[in-house]
Amino acid sequence: MAGTDTSKEFVFRPSPAIILVEPQLGENIGTAARAMANFGLWDMRLVAPRDGWPNPKAVAAAAKADHVIDRVQVFDTLAEAIADLTLVYATTARSREMFKPVIGPDVAADTMTAHIGAGHKAGILFGRERWGLNNEEVSLANAIVTLPVEPAFASLNIAQAVLVLAYEWRRAALSGEPLPFDEDKGVPATGEEMVGLVEQLGDALDRSNFFKSPGKRPGMMNNIRSMFTRAGFNQQEVRTLRGIIASLDRRHERPNPFRVKKGE
Amino acid sequence: MAGTDTSKEFVFRPSPAIILVEPQLGENIGTAARAMANFGLWDMRLVAPRDGWPNPKAVAAAAKADHVIDRVQVFDTLAEAIADLTLVYATTARSREMFKPVIGPDVAADTMTAHIGAGHKAGILFGRERWGLNNEEVSLANAIVTLPVEPAFASLNIAQAVLVLAYEWRRAALSGEPLPFDEDKGVPATGEEMVGLVEQLGDALDRSNFFKSPGKRPGMMNNIRSMFTRAGFNQQEVRTLRGIIASLDRRHERPNPFRVKKGE
Repeated sequence: MAGTDTSKEFVFRPSPAIILVEPQLGENIGTAARAMANFGLWDMRLVAPRDGWPNPKAVAAAAKADHVIDRVQVFDTLAEAIADLTLVYATTARSREMFKPVIGPDVAADTMTAHIGAGHKAGILFGRERWGLNNEEVSLANAIVTLPVEPAFASLNIAQAVLVLAYEWRRAALSGEPLPFDEDKGVPATGEEMVGLVEQLGDALDRSNFFKSPGKRPGMMNNIRSMFTRAGFNQQEVRTLRGIIASLDRRHERPNPFRVKKGE
Repeated sequence: MAGTDTSKEFVFRPSPAIILVEPQLGENIGTAARAMANFGLWDMRLVAPRDGWPNPKAVAAAAKADHVIDRVQVFDTLAEAIADLTLVYATTARSREMFKPVIGPDVAADTMTAHIGAGHKAGILFGRERWGLNNEEVSLANAIVTLPVEPAFASLNIAQAVLVLAYEWRRAALSGEPLPFDEDKGVPATGEEMVGLVEQLGDALDRSNFFKSPGKRPGMMNNIRSMFTRAGFNQQEVRTLRGIIASLDRRHERPNPFRVKKGE
């Protein structure tokens, strides 16, 4: 999935903060930063990273997500890291026996999109590699976000969890906007062009004795017309098909026992 | 996000095949297998893997996703790998100048869910690390799937792309089913309990001279009632709140200039 367009500048849209609580490995900070950059996030906050900051291993693993790494903010406590946020989600893979809503990344992304779109700030907490967030940290969040993983194989690393949340954020935030690229679909064929195509095919099939009896022709032509219409051909494709039919039609000269006039 | 429940057995639901075309690094095959396992996929197919198969590096990187690794099928050609499939998507990060629909992972997942739910088979193609799929390979697919990445930072590795597609598959396939866990929300408080809570609070506020004039009391009580109702307290939380109010109420003995009877 290589495809970075170096002519494009990274766009700093309002977006959720990604808050890593006491991350242990620099590599995980870096790959999380990269996952954020993939989906347009840029506000990374670290709470008491084990190996301090800056961390050369994080920079190396971030693979040029410099615009994220350069903006990292470090805090001593989680309370300070979320001080400016008005919506906070805690990611966790297990129940905490707390009275708190549990939602999926899709609902979280939709809610954050509305919240941030209204001018407010949101963030998502990710816990330590070994044992996640503690219950006091989770209690600071408005809701718990969990991934719809297979229970028998539920272990995701931090960067993977960040990737899924970041993907969902961008899907929700850019909902209705075009994907990074689209293919040219050509100019759709008109009704007249489709009728012309099917008539040419019908004539050629008459000449090749395709219809075993004249009575079957109208029904079979309806099926063919239906099949071709469903394909949504463009004008160039109709020209290609007409060329194919003409080529096959000229290949054999066959007797034509029940030639039927157009429109019958 | 550690949280594998070793008491649970992996469930082999009908699900899309993940087809890696000429993968080069065993590690990427392994991490892709792990991403599949996270979201319940198990049908991995390799087309002409560079280093042959089995590949010890793939096994190591798969981190115990043995139920995926043990079922890997290897094919000489892509045509053989997709022979049994009736819906095929090609992932790519760039335009191919082909007349082909381009969709996001969410639409792909929804379509595959319907297709597989109807008893048919589907698969998703992922290209080589260096340069993805070639145009002939893409032309074998029904549509192109691309991720809504930030154009200025679009490079995802294979395992990350597999992770997002696998996540979307599971989100769509299990749509409406519960997440891996949920929190106990307690027994919702009844209307009577809410009225009792607010009345108790109103009485306490009367005693503490909270209302500057009796005329303001009804409107302010409406606001308080509305705020408390919106919070969706459960019965235990209402009991806790009543205890808090009683405790604060006893703390100070204040004169009560305009004590108002309930219901006024």
